[in-house]
Amino acid sequence: MAILVVGSVAFDTIETPSGRAERCLGGAATHFALAASYFTDVRVIAVVGEDFTAEHEAILTRRGIDTRGIEHTSGKSFFWSGSYLRNLNEAQTLSTELNVFQRFTPKIPPEYQDSEYLFLANIDPVLQADVRSRMPKVKLVCGDTMNYWINDHRDNLARVLRGLDGLLINDTEAKLLAKDANLVRAAEKVLAMGPRSLVIKHGEYGATAFFSSRSFTGQNGKVFLPFRAPAMPLAEVVDPTGAGDSFAGGFFGYLASQKEMSPAVFKKAMFYGGVMGSFAVERFGTERLQQLVPKEIEERFALFRELSHLD
Amino acid sequence: MAILVVGSVAFDTIETPSGRAERCLGGAATHFALAASYFTDVRVIAVVGEDFTAEHEAILTRRGIDTRGIEHTSGKSFFWSGSYLRNLNEAQTLSTELNVFQRFTPKIPPEYQDSEYLFLANIDPVLQADVRSRMPKVKLVCGDTMNYWINDHRDNLARVLRGLDGLLINDTEAKLLAKDANLVRAAEKVLAMGPRSLVIKHGEYGATAFFSSRSFTGQNGKVFLPFRAPAMPLAEVVDPTGAGDSFAGGFFGYLASQKEMSPAVFKKAMFYGGVMGSFAVERFGTERLQQLVPKEIEERFALFRELSHLD
Repeated sequence: MAILVVGSVAFDTIETPSGRAERCLGGAATHFALAASYFTDVRVIAVVGEDFTAEHEAILTRRGIDTRGIEHTSGKSFFWSGSYLRNLNEAQTLSTELNVFQRFTPKIPPEYQDSEYLFLANIDPVLQADVRSRMPKVKLVCGDTMNYWINDHRDNLARVLRGLDGLLINDTEAKLLAKDANLVRAAEKVLAMGPRSLVIKHGEYGATAFFSSRSFTGQNGKVFLPFRAPAMPLAEVVDPTGAGDSFAGGFFGYLASQKEMSPAVFKKAMFYGGVMGSFAVERFGTERLQQLVPKEIEERFALFRELSHLD
Repeated sequence: MAILVVGSVAFDTIETPSGRAERCLGGAATHFALAASYFTDVRVIAVVGEDFTAEHEAILTRRGIDTRGIEHTSGKSFFWSGSYLRNLNEAQTLSTELNVFQRFTPKIPPEYQDSEYLFLANIDPVLQADVRSRMPKVKLVCGDTMNYWINDHRDNLARVLRGLDGLLINDTEAKLLAKDANLVRAAEKVLAMGPRSLVIKHGEYGATAFFSSRSFTGQNGKVFLPFRAPAMPLAEVVDPTGAGDSFAGGFFGYLASQKEMSPAVFKKAMFYGGVMGSFAVERFGTERLQQLVPKEIEERFALFRELSHLD
């Protein structure tokens, strides 16, 4: 089933202990779409400037990603530069230039209207809510957000959360959103805000999913145990940028590839999220996500299982 | 098979967001012994002062723990006070009084000589090495250490590491010991220092075991994948003190209860470590570890499996 993702397509300049990359293709929607493209059809809604060339677009279309929803406009694309020299787990932002993103109004091409899966990547919750409202027939909606929206746009974000089947955020964001330093209590409070499930990403320690009693159809009232998926122990993290978006792409891509949503499918999706996140950080930008083959993904999935299962 | 543990028996005054506990029985050997006592026979070597009463000793003997190696001497027992008000993941030490521990010379009762399993809890590596050398026939030796010994007693610690089958430390300690900020590289460097296996504890994120090619008899040259065990997501951590020692007790206790050491047994031991650590933090001091029943342990083990397994 096709996924529609709305979010940023951007250029990133990144420095890490492994080196430096200038203006590589990035953005939440880019990482998400590439990761999800190994599982299902993906359609992107975003805005880019004149610096986004046919060559950049080919990075997406070579993976079969539908780019008809990427609006080309005058000016420069969203640009971010950051450094992980001090801490590989947290980027130090050196500069952010919104550029064309400042006046972004998502347009949904008619060809995208039959998308059954919707992912609202990290953008202004007003835009997330707008796209959500114009796709009333989607089967499943998941989304992401970040500190900035949690702190300064809480009411707008609250409206988005009420309509989500799943929210994917990291530890810091979950605790900030819930105003609670304990992860389990924070998860309960976030679920009470609306999302039927919550995936909290722990970086190198994996991710934990929490479920509300409305998580799975036909299972009303039953409370599901949390589920914890591992991350791959890696001797070198070349570039952590986009790891969370790649997790989301693997997770949601796998969900969209399955006929039914069930606890078993959700758990496997958590593993595929970790798998795609682990590939993403092995090279700068989207380099690794551009050139995977299905066999590598299945082999790493098997490794994740061996890494965490008793038998 | 009986475990001999050498380490501290102490009194702790602890404040956490859940409250405050005055002079509760603590110390690495205490937490370890109580946790391990649910799996096998445990014998303790430690030193205590006049403030350690028959009532305190009964906390151990009620669990069948052999306390003949606890030396009673004049003066006061080791005392520690700490606060977790700022950060539940890291204690702020308010005071440390070594007291009788300052002149501790471990004595091994003749009845302990046939112990097949030896655990060197966190004490001066000179004492760890001494006890190790006087128990030449043990089948398996594991141990713990801390920042202080890593920083200022590195050569003495190196001698201990060379004789260990397993070292159990946390993320910070592993990175400090290896002088490497990447966990996988740090693990490789620590294994190169001697221990055949290394268990790195991640607190609320569980623990990862790394293996050298000499980890399991008869498997020479084969490199084992790391293994990651989850921790229990808890809505309230009442007191984190002793969680790591309780992990070690559950881990080593389970190993000692098994006939053969194998990768499968090692993995289950990691889970039992997490199980005992998760109980320990539910109450102040050793309160929770004093009153468990085997059924609770097995039920939580099953929860750990459900929490982390795809099927």
